[in-house]
Amino acid sequence: MQILKIFADPALSPELKTLLADGLAPHEVIFPARPAGSVLEKAESDPRFAEADIAFGQPDPADVLTSPRLRWLHISTAGYTRYDTPEFRSAAAEKGLVFTNSSGVYADACAHHALGFLLAHARRLPDGFSSAAPNGSAEWNALRARSTTLAGKNIFIAGYGGIAKRLGELLAPFGAHVTATRRNPRGDEGMAVFPAGETDDALPAADHIIDILPDNAETRLFFDARRFSLMKPGAVFHNIGRGTTVDQQALHAALTSGRLDSAWLDVTDPEPLPGDHPLRSLANCFITPHTAGGHADEARTLVLHFLENFRRHVSSQPLLGRVM
Amino acid sequence: MQILKIFADPALSPELKTLLADGLAPHEVIFPARPAGSVLEKAESDPRFAEADIAFGQPDPADVLTSPRLRWLHISTAGYTRYDTPEFRSAAAEKGLVFTNSSGVYADACAHHALGFLLAHARRLPDGFSSAAPNGSAEWNALRARSTTLAGKNIFIAGYGGIAKRLGELLAPFGAHVTATRRNPRGDEGMAVFPAGETDDALPAADHIIDILPDNAETRLFFDARRFSLMKPGAVFHNIGRGTTVDQQALHAALTSGRLDSAWLDVTDPEPLPGDHPLRSLANCFITPHTAGGHADEARTLVLHFLENFRRHVSSQPLLGRVM
Repeated sequence: MQILKIFADPALSPELKTLLADGLAPHEVIFPARPAGSVLEKAESDPRFAEADIAFGQPDPADVLTSPRLRWLHISTAGYTRYDTPEFRSAAAEKGLVFTNSSGVYADACAHHALGFLLAHARRLPDGFSSAAPNGSAEWNALRARSTTLAGKNIFIAGYGGIAKRLGELLAPFGAHVTATRRNPRGDEGMAVFPAGETDDALPAADHIIDILPDNAETRLFFDARRFSLMKPGAVFHNIGRGTTVDQQALHAALTSGRLDSAWLDVTDPEPLPGDHPLRSLANCFITPHTAGGHADEARTLVLHFLENFRRHVSSQPLLGRVM
Repeated sequence: MQILKIFADPALSPELKTLLADGLAPHEVIFPARPAGSVLEKAESDPRFAEADIAFGQPDPADVLTSPRLRWLHISTAGYTRYDTPEFRSAAAEKGLVFTNSSGVYADACAHHALGFLLAHARRLPDGFSSAAPNGSAEWNALRARSTTLAGKNIFIAGYGGIAKRLGELLAPFGAHVTATRRNPRGDEGMAVFPAGETDDALPAADHIIDILPDNAETRLFFDARRFSLMKPGAVFHNIGRGTTVDQQALHAALTSGRLDSAWLDVTDPEPLPGDHPLRSLANCFITPHTAGGHADEARTLVLHFLENFRRHVSSQPLLGRVM
């Protein structure tokens, strides 16, 4: 058996380093001297990267492409903007590099977060938490009348992927109509999925628009003034994809004109949004600081997910989260 | 065909009065001169009540029992405390009175509300909405690490009924373990249901305790200091039943001692809870003002639900929401 070298740059506790090393043995793990401080930051290049057959983490795209040995890159995030360029894609294809992501680690938590937004809106939780309206008062009747359920609602997801798939499963018992778009629909998505080019046709009927788009050249400022103007008056906009996919000035206008009921954002551009940003002053704009994928024991799940993919790799089974 | 007289005291718009009258024709509706101001208030007695074969709304229990003709009472709420006394039950049984409630109208909205609480906790939405923590900061890492999913969680419901049934359906895809108690388990509940007397056995394992108990002599102050002390450290307490079922002083102690992670309450005693009530000052106690059952078009749904039950009544089919 050939002993493989696996470069692993996620910041892990000693316990999780042991879990990873034991799970990979007899193959060898290379831990860089300085791991990535956060999975969203670039790690410093490490000379030992050149020895690696496999990389797990967030290595620099240039290092990946110049590496003499690397055959498989498993990144520790769901998003892969830094690697999603024509240059990287064509160079990776030429090298025969396999590229997988960790969307499976975050999909369930992200889908919970998105459904949490949908229900916080439906039940008007932020308004409820700040109200002490007596039963039967005008404020109370208005709050109850503004409350809804998801039954019969049209929920449109821009960007079908692992999160949308899981969200569709969680929404199944609610009696809502769920549709989505993706680059290349396959027909096995478990919901009605259209090509991304047909987004504009879906917007006028949607009660909820859920943006789960990745960040790339095609999606930047995708939700702009024109698309907000296509939405049903009173529609609700959600973003758990990437902040760069939204024209925030146009979103602000749609929230103040009454076009949109409200916006529920886990991602913004930049992050965090400055305290004096106009969106921060709106009573109908709710922002969490990119916490949708987070969950207790996230690092352990990340390691276990990679170990499962490694098991598949060495036994030539299809990998989880295959991107390229 | 015998023409029936239906006394209807809910406060309805002219449009909904027409919907009700048209749906009941050729039977006759009696609208009292003064309808109930709120479904939670007692309406004034109306002399024409004595003519009614059927009552829809919130008639006075004494009027119901002295009525010479009344054979069926359909109340416009889910809760039925005013009618849930040994005296009313035995007198109603003696008269052969059929008693139904409107829990079907509120069950879906209440179940949405309860799941909204569960997800707002799991995703730490109130903390997220008030945080602008930068990615990778200590506050951000802590917020993500405190976030969870419902996968594998033990969810215990005190008071199985229409709401718990619907909540169980909504929770099905989450991978949680859902159990409940009710007075008399039937075995057809779609989840593991135990007699109410076994509540104490269920509490130590529960991650979430959801109180959906009605208010009656057996349930008053049911969740007291002893029962809070049986709960797992870090458990989460929810109440969408009745405020009177909780010893609020004991709840306050459990929230400040660290025994409970947090409490999510749609009902309190009294309602609304005064601004200076000790529970109001806790950062881990979230209160909505009894809005769980509310939803847009609630009054229309109430009328349509009664009309469906009336159709069943005249065609001798089993009624919805049968209580007695």
